[in-house]
Formats: sequence, structure tokens, C-alpha cells
Amino acid sequence: MTSPEAREKAVLEAVGERRELVNEAIPEELPITRPERLYEASRYLLDAGGKRLRPTVLLATGEALADVEPLSTPYREFPTLQSTTVDLMAAAVSVEVIQSFTLIHDDIMDDDDLRRGVPAVHKAYDLETAILAGDTLYSKAFEIMLETGAESDRTVQALDVLANTCTQICEGQSLDVSFESREDVTPEEYLEMVEQKTAVLYAASAALPAILLGADQDTVDALYGYGLDVGRAFQIQDDVLDLTVPSEKLGKQRGSDLVENKQTLITVHAREQGVDVESLVDTTDVDAVTEAEIDDAVATLEDSGSISYANDKARDLVDRGKNRLEVLPDNEARELLLQVADYLIERGY
Amino acid sequence: MTSPEAREKAVLEAVGERRELVNEAIPEELPITRPERLYEASRYLLDAGGKRLRPTVLLATGEALADVEPLSTPYREFPTLQSTTVDLMAAAVSVEVIQSFTLIHDDIMDDDDLRRGVPAVHKAYDLETAILAGDTLYSKAFEIMLETGAESDRTVQALDVLANTCTQICEGQSLDVSFESREDVTPEEYLEMVEQKTAVLYAASAALPAILLGADQDTVDALYGYGLDVGRAFQIQDDVLDLTVPSEKLGKQRGSDLVENKQTLITVHAREQGVDVESLVDTTDVDAVTEAEIDDAVATLEDSGSISYANDKARDLVDRGKNRLEVLPDNEARELLLQVADYLIERGY
Repeated sequence: MTSPEAREKAVLEAVGERRELVNEAIPEELPITRPERLYEASRYLLDAGGKRLRPTVLLATGEALADVEPLSTPYREFPTLQSTTVDLMAAAVSVEVIQSFTLIHDDIMDDDDLRRGVPAVHKAYDLETAILAGDTLYSKAFEIMLETGAESDRTVQALDVLANTCTQICEGQSLDVSFESREDVTPEEYLEMVEQKTAVLYAASAALPAILLGADQDTVDALYGYGLDVGRAFQIQDDVLDLTVPSEKLGKQRGSDLVENKQTLITVHAREQGVDVESLVDTTDVDAVTEAEIDDAVATLEDSGSISYANDKARDLVDRGKNRLEVLPDNEARELLLQVADYLIERGY
Repeated sequence: MTSPEAREKAVLEAVGERRELVNEAIPEELPITRPERLYEASRYLLDAGGKRLRPTVLLATGEALADVEPLSTPYREFPTLQSTTVDLMAAAVSVEVIQSFTLIHDDIMDDDDLRRGVPAVHKAYDLETAILAGDTLYSKAFEIMLETGAESDRTVQALDVLANTCTQICEGQSLDVSFESREDVTPEEYLEMVEQKTAVLYAASAALPAILLGADQDTVDALYGYGLDVGRAFQIQDDVLDLTVPSEKLGKQRGSDLVENKQTLITVHAREQGVDVESLVDTTDVDAVTEAEIDDAVATLEDSGSISYANDKARDLVDRGKNRLEVLPDNEARELLLQVADYLIERGY
């Protein structure tokens, strides 16, 4: 049995190896062309970093399906299950481009100033450019997904997944905004929102290689389910980390979700337990809140069992997601996907 | 020879007949589902009206290619050139949905308050909802285009055109914004911007039925060219109308482009003729400008030959576009497409 620390190290190493390749592919798929300012703004957040977890899931799932040694096979000419090849890297970049588009628009909607340690695009540039940069990435993601060289039936299915994913992300974001003015959100509703806003892109990342490589529908569905499960767990863990990781490490004020009255699985559970969530923190200004206030709030949420409820829920989802990987051949890449699932809820930030 | 008046009447009647069918199809393709507020905002501008010129071009091009009597054949089960059927109406709605998405985001970028006689979406709702409504329409347009029932090769080509079109619209909008701070824009640059921002969606509207019905590539290309030509002419005519149509009829202040220092083919030409375009109108506030000021400005632009330059350019483009329709069978629907081309530059508003 691997320890969480050894697992985290292995996952970060595997992610890092693929990240380098993804980082090389991004400017190839999305060169800075005329009008330069638009493409610079479109690339700004992509170039600012990011773990590339979703592309890693996509590439590793492809390796598991093709039953090849990790990193042994060129992603740009990746073998399908029918002895043709597809550009799996293009699909991986497409998913990351969608992620980047949603972050740019979300930062406008939430009026967040910082992202990945740099100013948000609408701060570094302006509102107009940020809207347009997101819109450009949106269509570029489709253009890139159209260039994998997969046969037309599979390309159509891949684009269908991509378009559906984008629609659901918008629906999830809309639900998330509507939750801010509601006090009766149930855990089920919260998890549905998280599924749409966050998990569908993990689901697409795991299902797309199966579609492009020509796996059967059961495999596509199982991998999609894996992504939905671990993607929801990822978001729940994000909610936990917001309360438990020191501000310096988090890169933003700890407890900012509480201060800004954002719903999380933790607050939704606590409210059901009779906790007066709105009164946990007095201020709605993240710059005014004290560490002591956050400590008290966290203690209350621990007493109500809400943090362990969230931890348990995330663990259940990860275990369920891992079970779905039974459809894959037993190989090193599948092992990595199992480790990624654990990592998503064991990571420190 | 038909008079412009008779032509306008015929075109508006033909557009009106198809508009009714398009208006019925929009709620079918884009029902108000959960989250309701998001879908209501997404439908708001579509439901507020619009001529449906682009869907009309798409449907009529399909009729011309299939060589059927206009309005004789159900658009939902439209015959291809290979005795299968496709849902041509879905493609028409997809194009209109793209148009609507770009208007919603453009209105935010330009901070325009009104559109089609109703408040812009970001005014009727709020900035967040308007961004998200546009993003939702974006992916919905792809989802709808995926549902025409065309064979996969053609669907892939159709989606390629759609994605490219969206990218170019973003590029064109970005150029348009950048022109506002430049005084050395050439007519060629202006026309390139208009091609990207406006004409490509007309081009897609004319080319998509050829792709979906399985016409040869020469036909697809010729029809795309028709759309590019008449689409540019349409925008030039919009620029002329902004100066020449009374404010009451225009639905906004006449000369607002001049007041807001927006580049048009007219101002770009005038500047080349030595006209001090920035001084034509003193104010930059559309509510403060007088009709007399606009009259003087228009007189100056007439003296410099800039308005007739724009009129001539639009006429040239329309004639070129009409010539491209030689690829179509000689039938009633082709006649309508010829009339639409003339109408785009003869229309009074």
C-alpha cells in the first residue's frame, strides 16, 4: 500500500511530465496571430501556469486504453484501437482551452482580481478584451478538437461531448450564482451544481480519449462516470482546503468562501444541522476578516460534523470513481488514474 | 426589370414567411429549461425580434440547391442531393443563435443600452447573466448544428465552418475596437474587419446548406463568396444609413457612429481625402448632438465623395456576390437570393 505522500509525489511527477508536453503544444495550437492583443489576452492565463490536471487525465486515459507504456508513445500520433492514429494532444489542449475560457469569464462574473498568482484577464487587460478572449478560446477549443484526425463519426461524438460540457458548465455557473441568494440549498442540489460546473470537464477529459480511440460505448460511459465522480470530489476538497489551508499556502485569504457567503457542501450541511452559517463570520470583506474569526468558524463547522461530512463524501466519490476504472486494462497508466483520484482529495492545496 | 420598391416588397414578404417558421423553431431548439433564469436571458434577445435575414439566406440557398419550389418542402426533413434528408431548420436556428450570442456580448463591450427596441440583456438582467447567456447560446449553437442528421463527414465540415466563423467574428470585433484609437485605418483594413466581424456569418449561412446537402466544394466556395460579398455590402449600407435615415426611423440618433468616433468606410475614405473627421461633430455625447450638426457633417462627407464611394463599393460587392450565384440552378429560390443581395443595399433601414 502506497502512503498518501508517496502517492502525491508520484502523481505530481507524472502530471509534471505531461504538463511540459502540454505547455509545448499550447502555443502550437494557439499561436499569437493578428490581432495580436486578442491572442495575447487569450493566451495570458494559459501561459500563467496551471497544473494541467485535465489534460493529464485525458492523456493517461488514452495510454491506459491503448495499453502502452506511459510517455512511450507520441501523443500527436497516438494509436487508436483500430491501428490508425489520432492527435491525442490536440484533444488535451482543447480541454485545457475550455477550462481557460471558463476561468476568464468566471473571474469577470465574480469580479476576482487574481488568478494563478497574476491579475485576472479583465484586470490585466480590460472587460471588453477579457470577454472577447474567452469567446475566442471557446471557438478555438472546437477548432482544435476538429483537428485530431479521428474519423468523422468519432469527431462528431467528441464535439457533441465538448458542446454538452460547455452548456452544462454555464448551467452550473448559473446555479452557483443563484445559490448565493438562497439559504435552503440541499446537499443534493449542491452536488448537482458541482457536477455541472466542475465535474463535467473531468468527465469529458476521461471520456474523450475513449471516443477518439474507438472504444466501445460502455467504456466511454464508465470513464465519463469516473470523471464525474472524481471531479465532484475535487471540488469538495477545494471547499475543504479553503477552510483548512493557511492563507499563505492557499494564495488567497483562508475562509474566503465563508466571508463571501459562497455555498459549499460544508455550509449546506451545517445549515441542515442548525448552524447559523451567515453569522459564522461578521464581515463580507475578505481584507477585514481575522484568522481568529476563521478559526472559530472552522471549530463550529467541525462540531457540526460538516467538515468530516464533506471529507467522507469526497472519499466515497473517489472510491466509486476508482471502481469504474475496472473497464481499463490493468496497466501503469490505469494505476496513475487511480492515484490521480486519490490525489484529488489528499492534496494539500 | 423590377423596381427597388417591388423588390423590397418581395424580399420582405419572402423573409417574413420564413421568419415565422424560424420563430416557431427557436423555442423547439432552445426550450426554457432549468436553470430558467439563464435560459430566459438566453432567449430574451431572440424573442425580441429580428429580421432573420441569415436564416432566410440559409433556407433559400437550400431550396435553390435542392431545386424545389420555395416553401414547398418541410425544412425539418429537407432532401439532400443524395436522396437522404437533413434538418435544414436546425442549421438555420444555429446561425441565428450565433448571431444572438455575438449581439449580447457586443452590447456589453460597447455598453449599448438598447437592442431591437428593448433593453440590452446586460441591462434587462445583469452583466453576469448576460455573459453567461451568451456563453450558453455559443455551445447551444454547436449542439443544434450537431442535430441536423447529416452524415458525419458533412457535420464535421459544418462544425468547422461554424467554429471558424466564431473565431473570425471575435477577431473582427477585436479589430473594430482597436480601430477606435487609430486615425490611419485604410479602406482595405476596414473592409477586412467588416468581413470578419459581419460578413463571415452571411458566408456561413450561404455555404452551410451546400455542405449539409452534399453539394460539391466549388458550389460551397461560390456560395461562401456570395455571403462574404453581400455581408460586407450589408455592413457598408448600415454605415450609410446611420448618416442618412432620420433618427425616428433609425430607432437611435442619426450620426451616432460619427459622434462615437466609430470608423466606417465613409470616415476612412473621408480621412484619406483630407477631411478632419474628428472635428465633424464637436460632442461625443449622442444626447447632445443637434440635427444641424449632423446635416453639416453629412454635407462635408458628400462633398468629399465619401458617401458615394461607400454606395459604389456596396453596389460593386453586391454585383460580384450575385454573379457567384451562377453555380445555382436557375429557379425561384435563386431569384430570391439575388433579390436579397439587392435589398441589403437598397433597404431604407
